[in-house]
Amino acid sequence: MGPAATVDLMAKVIALTPAARDQDHVPLVVWSIPQIAERVPAVEGRGPSPLAMMLEGVRALEAAQCSAFAIACNTAHHWAGELAAATRIPLLHIADAAVAAVLRQAVRPRRIALLGTRGTIRSGFYQMRLDEAKLPWSTAADTGAEATAGIEAAIDAVKRNRLAEARQAFAPAARRLLDSGCDLLLLACTELPMASAGSGLEAQCLDTNHALAEAIVNHSLAGRSPTAGAPVGRHLS
Amino acid sequence: MGPAATVDLMAKVIALTPAARDQDHVPLVVWSIPQIAERVPAVEGRGPSPLAMMLEGVRALEAAQCSAFAIACNTAHHWAGELAAATRIPLLHIADAAVAAVLRQAVRPRRIALLGTRGTIRSGFYQMRLDEAKLPWSTAADTGAEATAGIEAAIDAVKRNRLAEARQAFAPAARRLLDSGCDLLLLACTELPMASAGSGLEAQCLDTNHALAEAIVNHSLAGRSPTAGAPVGRHLS
Repeated sequence: MGPAATVDLMAKVIALTPAARDQDHVPLVVWSIPQIAERVPAVEGRGPSPLAMMLEGVRALEAAQCSAFAIACNTAHHWAGELAAATRIPLLHIADAAVAAVLRQAVRPRRIALLGTRGTIRSGFYQMRLDEAKLPWSTAADTGAEATAGIEAAIDAVKRNRLAEARQAFAPAARRLLDSGCDLLLLACTELPMASAGSGLEAQCLDTNHALAEAIVNHSLAGRSPTAGAPVGRHLS
Repeated sequence: MGPAATVDLMAKVIALTPAARDQDHVPLVVWSIPQIAERVPAVEGRGPSPLAMMLEGVRALEAAQCSAFAIACNTAHHWAGELAAATRIPLLHIADAAVAAVLRQAVRPRRIALLGTRGTIRSGFYQMRLDEAKLPWSTAADTGAEATAGIEAAIDAVKRNRLAEARQAFAPAARRLLDSGCDLLLLACTELPMASAGSGLEAQCLDTNHALAEAIVNHSLAGRSPTAGAPVGRHLS
């Protein structure tokens, strides 16, 4: 729910939209209120829940007549069930989008390295979907505490806008996972693409924010009438 | 009201905000509905008005409890009076922000080249403010039809995402204005920073979207309480 991930998602939606003029672009309402409880401590039961503020955002997007909503934060999908239950409009789930993007690739990966916050990994919503899709996976923890610490340090550095530091933390942890038999790095944290950029490992990365942007554009194009379209809401605290 | 200008403004707000963690960032609600009537033909009386849809956006931002609103499109400020009259929350006017940014510069410009759409130039809200601030100005039209055509072609190329073409159209028109005695290029169209980037003329440009981002951050910091802040709305169709 860092605002940089929101902007990154919006830029990807624009880039992925076939548009010859302003009016061809996806209508969006964006709720970017970063004054929300930290997600990772909440998942771990060590801090207040962000759910009430996220519900407020989802209701605001529904009131703005959005036809669907999406969240530019993987960890926040821990509360996907509660959020979806509170509104009539569908959630475009980032893990559904990511698994669909993996399955669209020309070559099926042998083993996926699932990289995210402690909250995302603990929540298990990626692992469940990867198992359902019969896609083998490992987490950083499977190769040791050092790789886990590297991924967490990379995420934290992006949040503090220290991109060089983020890259330095990301690359060795990512290489360790590739050396352990993974051939696809699933960046299941929307800060990680900023840490992998310039690492030389981009070709082996799948950016879940990019996959989510594809899902948003596809939703918008599918519902488009010749004259107008309901906006796609994004609860992006 | 191209969505790229919206994303550009949001990225500038993030970059200008002193933030050590997500929660320090400016809370924003963004209304980015590009399915709105073209602004320039409307100002020229040749097309339908975008006002009703802009009013809808402003009312949605007020309902979302925003403390102010801003518009990432210079031409749309032609309707600033009607928009401000329809809501209790103040408009952070892009031309006020731009003139304030000019006056903050260490050296007062001798003559400002005012570059924008035909609609913005015709509307006159920049010229009025520059006159009030005793800042001499010229428009592209003052140096001939070729410079005007160059600026309009640059704006149009950015809207079609042809940045190399935009740069080629921008640079000769901008140089003509500098040769005619202007020493500051006021980019009074939110597409123009993307045309000036890489032109070699960046140091002589003042980006009104950057000035607006400064105004948004200042508004947010001024109103910030220790625990929470009302979001800054942006009507960004």
